[in-house]
Amino acid sequence: MTQLLIIGGSDAGISAALRAKEIAPSIDVTVVVADRFPNFSICGLPFYLSGEVFDWHDLAHRTVADIEREGIRLLLDHKVQAIDPDDKIIEAVGPKREVQYLSYDKLVIGTGAVSARPHIAGLDSPGVFPMRWMKDAFAVQRILKRRPKPKSAVVVGGGYIGMEMAESLSRRGLEIIVVEYFDTVLSTVDRTFGQIVKETLERHGVQVATGVAVDAIKPQGKWLAVSGSGGFDVWADLVIFATGVRPEATLAQAAGIDVGKWGAIRVNHEMETNIPGIYAAGDCAETWHRLLERYVYLPLGTTAHKQGRIAGENAVGGQRRYAGTLGTQVLKIFDLVVARTGLRDSEASEAGFDPSTIELETWDHKAYYPGAQWVVLRVTGDRGTGRLLGAQIIGRRGAEVSKRIDVFAAALFHRMAVDALNDLDLSYTPPLSSPWDPVQMAAQAWVQSQG
Amino acid sequence: MTQLLIIGGSDAGISAALRAKEIAPSIDVTVVVADRFPNFSICGLPFYLSGEVFDWHDLAHRTVADIEREGIRLLLDHKVQAIDPDDKIIEAVGPKREVQYLSYDKLVIGTGAVSARPHIAGLDSPGVFPMRWMKDAFAVQRILKRRPKPKSAVVVGGGYIGMEMAESLSRRGLEIIVVEYFDTVLSTVDRTFGQIVKETLERHGVQVATGVAVDAIKPQGKWLAVSGSGGFDVWADLVIFATGVRPEATLAQAAGIDVGKWGAIRVNHEMETNIPGIYAAGDCAETWHRLLERYVYLPLGTTAHKQGRIAGENAVGGQRRYAGTLGTQVLKIFDLVVARTGLRDSEASEAGFDPSTIELETWDHKAYYPGAQWVVLRVTGDRGTGRLLGAQIIGRRGAEVSKRIDVFAAALFHRMAVDALNDLDLSYTPPLSSPWDPVQMAAQAWVQSQG
Repeated sequence: MTQLLIIGGSDAGISAALRAKEIAPSIDVTVVVADRFPNFSICGLPFYLSGEVFDWHDLAHRTVADIEREGIRLLLDHKVQAIDPDDKIIEAVGPKREVQYLSYDKLVIGTGAVSARPHIAGLDSPGVFPMRWMKDAFAVQRILKRRPKPKSAVVVGGGYIGMEMAESLSRRGLEIIVVEYFDTVLSTVDRTFGQIVKETLERHGVQVATGVAVDAIKPQGKWLAVSGSGGFDVWADLVIFATGVRPEATLAQAAGIDVGKWGAIRVNHEMETNIPGIYAAGDCAETWHRLLERYVYLPLGTTAHKQGRIAGENAVGGQRRYAGTLGTQVLKIFDLVVARTGLRDSEASEAGFDPSTIELETWDHKAYYPGAQWVVLRVTGDRGTGRLLGAQIIGRRGAEVSKRIDVFAAALFHRMAVDALNDLDLSYTPPLSSPWDPVQMAAQAWVQSQG
Repeated sequence: MTQLLIIGGSDAGISAALRAKEIAPSIDVTVVVADRFPNFSICGLPFYLSGEVFDWHDLAHRTVADIEREGIRLLLDHKVQAIDPDDKIIEAVGPKREVQYLSYDKLVIGTGAVSARPHIAGLDSPGVFPMRWMKDAFAVQRILKRRPKPKSAVVVGGGYIGMEMAESLSRRGLEIIVVEYFDTVLSTVDRTFGQIVKETLERHGVQVATGVAVDAIKPQGKWLAVSGSGGFDVWADLVIFATGVRPEATLAQAAGIDVGKWGAIRVNHEMETNIPGIYAAGDCAETWHRLLERYVYLPLGTTAHKQGRIAGENAVGGQRRYAGTLGTQVLKIFDLVVARTGLRDSEASEAGFDPSTIELETWDHKAYYPGAQWVVLRVTGDRGTGRLLGAQIIGRRGAEVSKRIDVFAAALFHRMAVDALNDLDLSYTPPLSSPWDPVQMAAQAWVQSQG
């Protein structure tokens, strides 16, 4: 019986295990999980801390029992120490420090990412946390339950996780200051959208300090003093740093597996590494970008699921190729939704396109029908070829921003021209859209802007 | 200066006019409109009658002034009596019965559709109305404002308009009975969905009688007696019949323009009729079906806008081809949204495919995040090739049903395989979706069902 071994029990690892079992039920599949929380939705941590998700157990995409019912063996609380690709053996250490050797025929590495540690003095002080694993969430939860209750938090980093943690802790009644190095929050979308996000945060009582490089965190009595550039100096009970992640590929690298310039594992389109029979997927690996037509490091849960599924399929004899990321992302922040897919103007320029970007504000549905909400769309296309390169949408929750970006994503997947979006037969009823969906109105505005 | 003449001021006609002016501002464009309501959203009539749209003027996509500001000449209250393609002249009769002759270089026909008149005795009785034009809505509004107020209505026909009118009049406080010939309402979607729609209507106090052929409407004192098969016999103040439409192509036919088997004007992919320089678009014309690869009669507002835009572009020298309909439709009925795109199992069979359809019930977003709503998806694919053929989704408003069907529509447009939907990089955040969007979960269920 073929032995499939998977290192890592998060999105990529479990997806690989499930897919392998689905295709080849007789295969022996073991997943080695470093903690006790396989297949947890770490995207859900901010919602657990906000109190919106009452029980952290609910964050599991699947329970241990669900996974085991599929015939998958889970080795929890086991840290893999080494991979020996010559003998096809891994060395793992269990909760009681006992060493185990496991042999494999095929191996999938899904070791994920770790929080990037910014260059800030005092990052290891008590009360300072990243937000990556269940243990991070539990640690913050313990502090939130202390009496007297903590009153304030500084969130370092205005990206997706920073935004969600700001909302989360604000919902728990803390006063929040978000500190961002760039001059706008959510720098993954264009400045006009970042400004709307900032205003939304402020409207909900969250303070935002942009253009500030935090350089030190110092315990001062029961508080933490956070200081940065431009004389930034605040005190808080709690500091969350959310300044991005870096791939966890030390194990792979030590085994002679190639890593690329971001430190992520190199893979081919079949998610196989340079060592035949060893696959990598998810946040520990490089990702093929469908528009840039090169590898990038862009860790996302959706990508981890896709790549894991493909690695699992190919590990048991499949031939599936990863079709590539478009960098599709969406964030809900309070009552606002902001989404992007494909390339922004600056990214497209860097990649050698000749981009042009327009912005259109319109209604999510016919304005005469009650409840119409504004949406703003930004469309980027290539001047020379008319090809769609990317889109961004911002609007209120309920304006179907998320699935509208997905229409753009489907169009990008197929290399459509911006003008060709008008050929798509999209659904319409006055309470939900217009005869030309906002997606198409924006496409028309782009085409018109080209003269 | 080229004279572009357009007959019909609804979706197709105005779209043609606007596009022609956009491309060739120097062209002389005249639109002959039979009533005083150019560019009105007739899809909005039920929402005007429900009271959700207070002022009927708001139903205009654009006002007369808006249209004229684009340099388009509107001839309101003018009925075209004849087209003379040899001399390129039309004869129109104005509001004071004055006859006018207008010459043209290019002609676009957008005469729309009329309500199909079912074979029901007494259809012309006072208090019996179709729901097609502004005048129909005004007539019903007058009755709704009478004192004493009308208390009940029968809606004949359980299609899109019938459903919307049932909700509309129910919101105005009338007791409603919907009578449908088939054994389920909304027979444009599969039976399980029709059943959910029926239950939703009933939960909102609307009675539904299925499997009933209405055969007579008789005025009885101040009421209308509606009788049908199986002993169906009810009295009501008001009857709306919504039993479909048929193309209005008499004018075209009299001028020697070819019509097809449904009585709709035949066009090529450029929306040109058999007479060069005469185009037709919208509900009066046949429509190319992208999946069936033949012409059908499928009148929809979205299609009228697209075809009108193409006719207008080609009338001023363009070469644009209509890409074809997928039959994408969506209906909001009370708090429910139901949508479809592409072919259903039975339609696909008739067209020579070997279809297989699965149904999947899931959540619109991660169940752990508050407010998750059920959605049910039905996916139809071809067994032999694995090609996606169609999809249907039903769910609560707010579950992004409408734009999820559009992801399927974009996939159908590109002839994707069902399995390839898993390659799409769709957006995810726990409050709005799952790492595999419901669209992809349904695709996976279909692939698994194929063994």
